[in-house]
Amino acid sequence: MNAIDELTESFSRLPGIGKKSAGRLVNFILKADTSYVKKFALQLNTLQEKIKPCSVCGTWTEDDPCPICTDTMRDRSIICVVEQPQDVSTIESSHEFNGLFHVLGGVIAPLEGIGPDQLNIKQLIKRITEEKVSEVIIATNPTVEGDTTALYLQRMIAAVSDIKVTRLASGLPVGGDLEYADKLTLARSFRGRTEV
Amino acid sequence: MNAIDELTESFSRLPGIGKKSAGRLVNFILKADTSYVKKFALQLNTLQEKIKPCSVCGTWTEDDPCPICTDTMRDRSIICVVEQPQDVSTIESSHEFNGLFHVLGGVIAPLEGIGPDQLNIKQLIKRITEEKVSEVIIATNPTVEGDTTALYLQRMIAAVSDIKVTRLASGLPVGGDLEYADKLTLARSFRGRTEV
Repeated sequence: MNAIDELTESFSRLPGIGKKSAGRLVNFILKADTSYVKKFALQLNTLQEKIKPCSVCGTWTEDDPCPICTDTMRDRSIICVVEQPQDVSTIESSHEFNGLFHVLGGVIAPLEGIGPDQLNIKQLIKRITEEKVSEVIIATNPTVEGDTTALYLQRMIAAVSDIKVTRLASGLPVGGDLEYADKLTLARSFRGRTEV
Repeated sequence: MNAIDELTESFSRLPGIGKKSAGRLVNFILKADTSYVKKFALQLNTLQEKIKPCSVCGTWTEDDPCPICTDTMRDRSIICVVEQPQDVSTIESSHEFNGLFHVLGGVIAPLEGIGPDQLNIKQLIKRITEEKVSEVIIATNPTVEGDTTALYLQRMIAAVSDIKVTRLASGLPVGGDLEYADKLTLARSFRGRTEV
């Protein structure tokens, strides 16, 4: 196996990249600007050393605690609970939320052997009881597992505190078309209808 | 810009990978096995040093001349001319050809400012006149530029030698459907029809 085959093999282990695309990427790298390739390799080599989960909220960060947890301009009384670290950047890019985050690291999925103990839930309960939190927004995905996890969290929080627990609205996506909405989404948009 | 954004930026410079996919790949790298990521970074870092164009045929190789050019079991009287180094591995994987290769490094494309002088043509003529070559198979792509280049090469070769110059057959792909064939391909498959 030569250097081309080895790099092709590494590229094809990335999600969504097959053997053919990997070959194309290696050909691109062969002809690419050397300074770009060197920088790319260095970034790849040091990423895992530089980036760690924030000890407070669990999102990926270079500094611990992360810039969001240490930002004094943010509303520290609202915590938005998400499944994955990347969900934090998705919500941040919407500029719709100015509170703090908490990353679970997954959802309750018994079939995959993931129970509440594998998730970052204890730390969330600790934050709720020790800090002045007035609302928890549960922003797990609107899937069976996400909904189950939301329900579980709501009960856990209710057992230790009487703060407001909310869930992101689920319904028709903006710009979508009734015709293409699936039954479940449509049903949920009826149940969650709001007054005009 | 933190380490995540920097690596996302580098990933998104790869062909066919947008900003969102790049973000997904970085998240995969963050959670991936460290030994894999380290190996990947090393392979990326050393690829361009290890792999060079073969001084005889122009394909990517670790050893110069490449294993194909030095293989004494191959038919050294036939040279297959291709556009890009990756075409060599595509043809090799078909196990249909046992001769030598010659990589042009592109095709004649006046609109992009690529004329015959930018291509590896002189070296091809040198090989034809100095070595015992009996046939040149032109395997440039069946595009306007590929066909133009094939015609140009055929004339250049005819000027210095009377060896056989052939072109890969063009027509309906195996497993294809007449209904979906474009007009040009269909026209070419009529002109190139063979007796049953």
